[in-house]
Formats: sequence, C-alpha cells, structure tokens
Amino acid sequence: MEHKKIILTGDRPSGPLHLGHYVGSLINRIEHQNQYEQYVMLADVQALTDNFEHPEKVRDNILQVGLDYLSVGIDPTKSTIFIQSMIPQIAELTIFYLNLVSVNRLKRNPTVKTEIKQKGFGEHIPAGFFMYPVSQAADITIVKGNLVSVGDDQLPMLEQCNEIIRSFNRIYKTPVFSEVEWLPSKTPRLPGIDGKTKMSKSMGNAIFLSDSADAVAKKVMSMYTDPEHIRVEDPGKVEGNTVFMYLDVFDPDKNTVEEMKAHYQRGGLGDVKVKRRLIEVLNTFLEPIRARRADWAKDPSQVMQILFEGTEKVYGVAEQTMSEVRRAMQLDYK
Amino acid sequence: MEHKKIILTGDRPSGPLHLGHYVGSLINRIEHQNQYEQYVMLADVQALTDNFEHPEKVRDNILQVGLDYLSVGIDPTKSTIFIQSMIPQIAELTIFYLNLVSVNRLKRNPTVKTEIKQKGFGEHIPAGFFMYPVSQAADITIVKGNLVSVGDDQLPMLEQCNEIIRSFNRIYKTPVFSEVEWLPSKTPRLPGIDGKTKMSKSMGNAIFLSDSADAVAKKVMSMYTDPEHIRVEDPGKVEGNTVFMYLDVFDPDKNTVEEMKAHYQRGGLGDVKVKRRLIEVLNTFLEPIRARRADWAKDPSQVMQILFEGTEKVYGVAEQTMSEVRRAMQLDYK
Repeated sequence: MEHKKIILTGDRPSGPLHLGHYVGSLINRIEHQNQYEQYVMLADVQALTDNFEHPEKVRDNILQVGLDYLSVGIDPTKSTIFIQSMIPQIAELTIFYLNLVSVNRLKRNPTVKTEIKQKGFGEHIPAGFFMYPVSQAADITIVKGNLVSVGDDQLPMLEQCNEIIRSFNRIYKTPVFSEVEWLPSKTPRLPGIDGKTKMSKSMGNAIFLSDSADAVAKKVMSMYTDPEHIRVEDPGKVEGNTVFMYLDVFDPDKNTVEEMKAHYQRGGLGDVKVKRRLIEVLNTFLEPIRARRADWAKDPSQVMQILFEGTEKVYGVAEQTMSEVRRAMQLDYK
Repeated sequence: MEHKKIILTGDRPSGPLHLGHYVGSLINRIEHQNQYEQYVMLADVQALTDNFEHPEKVRDNILQVGLDYLSVGIDPTKSTIFIQSMIPQIAELTIFYLNLVSVNRLKRNPTVKTEIKQKGFGEHIPAGFFMYPVSQAADITIVKGNLVSVGDDQLPMLEQCNEIIRSFNRIYKTPVFSEVEWLPSKTPRLPGIDGKTKMSKSMGNAIFLSDSADAVAKKVMSMYTDPEHIRVEDPGKVEGNTVFMYLDVFDPDKNTVEEMKAHYQRGGLGDVKVKRRLIEVLNTFLEPIRARRADWAKDPSQVMQILFEGTEKVYGVAEQTMSEVRRAMQLDYK
C-alpha cells in the first residue's frame, strides 16, 4: 500500500477567518483531506511574532478559528487539527535550523521584506518575526510534510525551507527530510469589499465566515463598484468591480451572472440590484456554514477536545521526527 | 527558612576544560555549591551554534566535560549538572523571547560583535549564533536564576537578559521572572602558554585538566617567558612572563615565588629552573584531580547517569517555569 502524501497547512489565529481564506485555502483543504494526510495548524506561536503584545487576541481566536474549520467542513476524522504552541518540538527544531541559515539570507527573503514594510516595524523588527521562515520550515518538517499549498507570494518561504532541508541532510549525513513540493492554490485572491487587492481582517475589508446575514448585507451594500457608475441608466464597468468579482466566485448560476454583466455594461442595471443578488448568493453559501457553527458552538469544550486530540497525535509524530533529528545530530545520549 | 539564591553556570562542551576554566570559573563553582542552589549546564545546543558542522565534537565532550566537573570537585549532591539539549523548554522560551528583542538590538550586542569577528564568519553569520544571547536568557530564566558569575566581558549578555525579563513581566503583566544579578568572578584570566591574553582550546595554548604529567611538563617547557632573557646570568622580566603568572596563581608557597622573582630579575636564574618549579606545582595541583578522574572514568555510564538525573530534575523545574510562562502569555489552553 502506498503512503498518502503529507500536507501541512494552517492559519495564524489572530482573527476569525473570512471569505478570502475560504476561496484561497479552506476550499482546497476540504478537497485535500480526501487525497492526503492533512495537518491543519493553529499557528499561535507564529501569530505571537507580530501580536506578542496582545496575547488575548491569539488566545480568543484559537476557539474561533477552530469553529471556522469545523463549520466549513474540515473533518477532524480526516484532518488533524492541532495547536502549534503545544508542540515544543517545533521550537527545538527551529533552534537547530537557525544554525543552518545566515542572518543575511534571512534579510534577503522577499516575503519577509514585504511583510516588514507592511507591518511598519521600522527599525524595531522583532527577532521572532525576522526568523519566522525558519520556524515555518520546522512546522512543515516536524510532521515530515511533503506538500504545502500556498500562493506564489509564499514561494520564497518554501525555497528557504528546502534550503534548510538540503543543509540538514548534507551536514548530518542522514536523509531525515525530503524536499517539500509546492501545490499551487487554484483560486485567485479575493479582493476586500473596498476593492483593495487583498481581503484582510487588519484592513477592515473582510466578510467573515461567522458574519450574520445582516452583517453580510451591510458589508455588501458598502462594497466598491464602479465609481463612475452614478445613475442607473449609465453604462457601468465590470472589470475591477468588486461585486461582480464576488459573483464570479460565489454565484453558481453563471448564465445569470453573464446576463447581469451585459446589462450593467450597457446601462440600466443599478448597483443596488446587483448587490442584492450578491447578498442572496453569499447568505445562501454561508447559511449551512453558520448552522454547523451554531451547532459546534453549543459545546466549545468539545471543539477544544478535538484540537487537543489532534495535538496529541502530532506530539507523537513530532517526537518520532525529533528522535531521528537527535540521532542524526548525535544528541541521542540515552 | 530563607530560600537559597539560584545560580546558573556552565560550559560549551566543545573541548575538555583547562586551567583557564579552573581559575576563571570552576574554583568559584566549588565554593558556590555550598552557598547557592547551583545549576551547571552542559551547553550542547549553544556549542552547536558555532560547531553545527561537527556534532561529534560536542557529543564526545559531554562525557569529557562531565568528567572534568566531577574530578575538580563539583559535587552532584550539591550541584545539579544537566544537558541543555534535553530541556526542550529552553527552546520554547527562546522562541517567545525572540519576539521581545529587535534585530538591531542583537546587532549592537558588543560581546556578539567581538565573537563574530573572532570566529571569522564574514557575511555568513549563522542566525543561531547571532541570537544566542536570547537563548542564554532562556537558559538562565528557565531555572529562575538569580545570579550569574561571569567575567565583565559577558556583562552585555546579562544586560540583554534583564531587558528581556523586564519586557516579559511588563507585556504579560505578571512578575514571572526576577532580574538577574552579576556575581563578578574573583580570579583574573589566565593567559595561554604562548603568553596570549586568553587560554583557549581553539588557540592551542591550553593546559587541560586531563593532561598527563608528561604533557604538562612538555607544555610548560614550551611556555612564553621573557624573550630578551637569553643567558642565565642576564636579568629577566617578571611582568608579562607567563611562567611567573602561573606560579602566582598556583604555587601555594608565595615566599619562594617572591624569592625566585627577585633572583630572576637580578639575573642568575634560568628559565628552565623556573619552569621545573611550575611543572612540579602544576602536577601537584593536578594529581588529585587526575586520580578522581581516573576513578570516575572507570564507569562512564555512572557519569552519564549523574547527568541524566540532574537533567531530569531541571526538566521538572523547567516545566514549572513554562507553566507560569504559558499562563502569563495566555497559552494555557488546558
């Protein structure tokens, strides 16, 4: 029997998940859990690298993101959901990996460079944030991951991970790890409701999976469309029109969407009508997710129990990996 | 009853210990174990930060340095000797501390700056080496250390440690740690046998605690004296003369040393005679250490057992510290 490939994925629990997460990764995970051995990590340690002054934010979102996972259909009998901070082996492995990476190499990581600018750390880049690519390599390899499914903006992280793997195997003369392959994510990024390129909780332009029907209606009504489409009878632009971009992704009735686009472009279709359609589409999509969420939310301790069981399983896997690492590094004194 | 203060000390097990270690730190530890609760760490993880390509060197020296400790009189019933890599909580704590220190702050650490130059890393400073002051802060605080006994060249490390402690207590609103005090080491540094300021295994100018009587004789005979003291009848210089510096430290008969110095200075006392005296003094000093070493070396597994028992004790202490850390950081999910 062939072993299933191992895939690692996860989120920083610094806020509830939104539609951007859904189309960018959750939808893939629901598929991947049937094909691969899937680990889903609640990356609380990583979330702390840029939220270390707000641990309560990370704390509260462990349960919230756990609920998000279960309500979208990540199935704990198929996927192993776990909490990063409860796997100390990741920290151990990170410390060993830090010897294999130079400070200059970390400085050159384009993803980190961009994020440092975005986060406005200025001259005060926390060392923990600076070296998080190394910590990510430990996340992936502690479960002997074969695949990661990330956007191409995250490719430098994967390259850094594979560099570490090659160095480790070469220096310690043991092929403990296999290089990790990239599984490109299928869906393009969803823009925020303000039309900005990225939906993000920190930018305040997100529709959350846990938003009520009313909240969704309100957010869609405030959505960015074509700023030059003033009167209903004017022709409007569909390109760059956030409402149509969302319909393209979420409306199962592609013909109606095409008809609406044509109507909008020639004039006579108002923004409000298109937005009403999107509200209906999104709420239809979110309704079963909300129902499952409400169900799980009745007993949060059961959700936590699922996370603890997943974590316990990963602890065992991690201990096995570390025993190989310690043997290769000649640290197996006992 | 007042609690004893806790002191942490230790060595990188990258080679056997030498006379420089003895006068610089071991002699203090033999005293401190009666006054304080003393932890002595075999810093294998730290040793790997600049020996990561030679794990066998670190591996082999765990037993050797353990033997050095026991043979000089570090008493395992009074001191807790432990192996750093077997305490994963240190790695966990290091990762949390890295969030509290900026990359620029690490760059400015004068001790690290100097060591980076000495080690000739050039543009390839391993990230693990770069951040080892943070890892040291974790070493000290994982056992809730109150005191460290180091030379003043290591004061920047202590300052870094206390900065981290203050940040941690402030940000996580819990006084988990107390600031660490400096216990200056009493004895000045012993120069190498080549007269260079520092005795160091890597500079090849060390007399090891495990050297045989013959090896000591040979090394003393090659020792740096006064290069202008050519003929026996010439007056010689005592200042900067390594042989006399060693006699000052190791010869219990101070009067004889003073007489020899005067004789040497007015001329008529040859280097060989002074060196013979030092050989005798050093071998008298080293003989009981060698005897105890030979005794312990008969059963290396007993030595390892002592290290494992110390490590187990520290594991318990570390777990207690981490449970306080996790509570303060709101990572105590269970």
